[in-house]
Amino acid sequence: MTTAPVCVLGLGLIGGSVLQAAVRAGRTAWGYNRSADAIAGSIQAGYDTGTDLTAALTRAAESDALIVIGVPMFALDEILDAIAEHAPNNPVTDVVSVKAEVAAAVHRHGLGARYVGGHPMAGTNQSGWSAADPDLFTDAVWVVGVDDGADPDAWRAVASLALDCGSVVVPVESGEHDRAVARISHLPHVLAETLALVGAASPLALGLAAGSFRDGTRVASSSPELVRAMCEGNADALVQALDETLALLNRAREELVDERSTKTLVTAGHNARTLYEQHERFDITGVEPGDDGWLEKYRAAGRRGGVVRQIRSASPG
Amino acid sequence: MTTAPVCVLGLGLIGGSVLQAAVRAGRTAWGYNRSADAIAGSIQAGYDTGTDLTAALTRAAESDALIVIGVPMFALDEILDAIAEHAPNNPVTDVVSVKAEVAAAVHRHGLGARYVGGHPMAGTNQSGWSAADPDLFTDAVWVVGVDDGADPDAWRAVASLALDCGSVVVPVESGEHDRAVARISHLPHVLAETLALVGAASPLALGLAAGSFRDGTRVASSSPELVRAMCEGNADALVQALDETLALLNRAREELVDERSTKTLVTAGHNARTLYEQHERFDITGVEPGDDGWLEKYRAAGRRGGVVRQIRSASPG
Repeated sequence: MTTAPVCVLGLGLIGGSVLQAAVRAGRTAWGYNRSADAIAGSIQAGYDTGTDLTAALTRAAESDALIVIGVPMFALDEILDAIAEHAPNNPVTDVVSVKAEVAAAVHRHGLGARYVGGHPMAGTNQSGWSAADPDLFTDAVWVVGVDDGADPDAWRAVASLALDCGSVVVPVESGEHDRAVARISHLPHVLAETLALVGAASPLALGLAAGSFRDGTRVASSSPELVRAMCEGNADALVQALDETLALLNRAREELVDERSTKTLVTAGHNARTLYEQHERFDITGVEPGDDGWLEKYRAAGRRGGVVRQIRSASPG
Repeated sequence: MTTAPVCVLGLGLIGGSVLQAAVRAGRTAWGYNRSADAIAGSIQAGYDTGTDLTAALTRAAESDALIVIGVPMFALDEILDAIAEHAPNNPVTDVVSVKAEVAAAVHRHGLGARYVGGHPMAGTNQSGWSAADPDLFTDAVWVVGVDDGADPDAWRAVASLALDCGSVVVPVESGEHDRAVARISHLPHVLAETLALVGAASPLALGLAAGSFRDGTRVASSSPELVRAMCEGNADALVQALDETLALLNRAREELVDERSTKTLVTAGHNARTLYEQHERFDITGVEPGDDGWLEKYRAAGRRGGVVRQIRSASPG
């Protein structure tokens, strides 16, 4: 098991939680954040954090630390510039919600060789260091990329961090990841914003709103900047999910108008939710990073519900 | 304060919770349910319940009990037939999710004179007596109808029960109620069913789903029969809410395709959710049931966030 040091860049909800979870797991870990105000509490709490990006990266280069990019999409290029300058040979991962666009940017900056993308499927509608929580990833799913050319040692380093944070690892290729999260993360945000608007069009309705509206609009209270960054960074896949949504809603409207019925939608929707509730995971065994065909095997298993719960140390030499 | 006995017909989640809350508030209360199996636990727990509808209604007639209709829409006519036969002069309310259709049925059965509709805005995705909970209505909003011709004494009886169950009362006219709940209760169900379907179209997506999908689809696990009954009983208002939804989603799709932006939807949706979070209630004072213009005054106040928190006893005759 690798126990590489960890350098976290961007200490918002996700990055901050990674730093806290890594420290709790016994890792040497430090963090960088652009704004000192936003992380004043982190220093007070004893975390090794600061606003000097060059210093954080120089230290990472010296110790071959795993670099974790935790900044939002719109700040990505600047961070990649700095990594390319100060720590161009380190293993790099990220915890950004879309993967293909991040991977493309990483490759543009010449950092592809030891990059393995990541996405912990966890969050709240809060943001910032003050909402960070070392338990955020406990029992969560953490996607670790299995794109062509992924370096087995970098993969071990990223998966090992995810496991140390309490998650299970699902190996997924970037494009497949983005199409999947459009359905279960970005579309829910679009529908929540829409529902909030239709509700708020009637003050009486807002006054009567109870559990179904509260839960259905919960993520509309997330930071608009972060919601936009993840939806717009995955525009093509989101349009596809939106088109399926519009087709279903148009058909439901037609059935409601023509037959005063919601049978088709409600029956199928209930079955779909039941499928979700009954979704089962299995442990991926018998294949290790670097084995012949490991990327294809991991992808196929990840698609079917497979998760990695432990990583063997890299075999010597 | 009236402390009329209470006769609850239909002991599912809502009816069962009304019975339990009424008993806890010190009311004499009994209940009827068609199926003995479904309420075996109620008798064991010491509640006065049974499967003899005629007996329950005869007792209600003898004591001028407030009759609470807690059966789903599709069982309504049969229950109204029995009330018309055995307790035609009792005050009657209901806890069904749509109001105009229930009111029309009540009037068709000649029971309009002492009918005042109700709708406690509370529920879970569970159903049945086993999910009933006397705390279900604590701090909830309970809509009490203020349709033209409402009888002030029946209104007091219904509002008083809602208050005894721990709720605040919002006076709303039936048609306005139905248009409002289409937005904040029925539309959320339609969107939850749709989201569940778009997610379940990809097994990988289901495996990655986390909080936003779980919350956004929660009510899709509700009983399909009950979801259909409430949505189809409010078809016109739901179509209107659906059309607003489709217009917003189509515009969002256009902006996403043309400008790779979600700014309009996300900004407005976040503001709408903030409006909901900041929604404030005020106490309706200075008007009592039966006062000149009380129905209009209650309606106007209810629309603006007004709630009734106490009811004076009826002035002597």
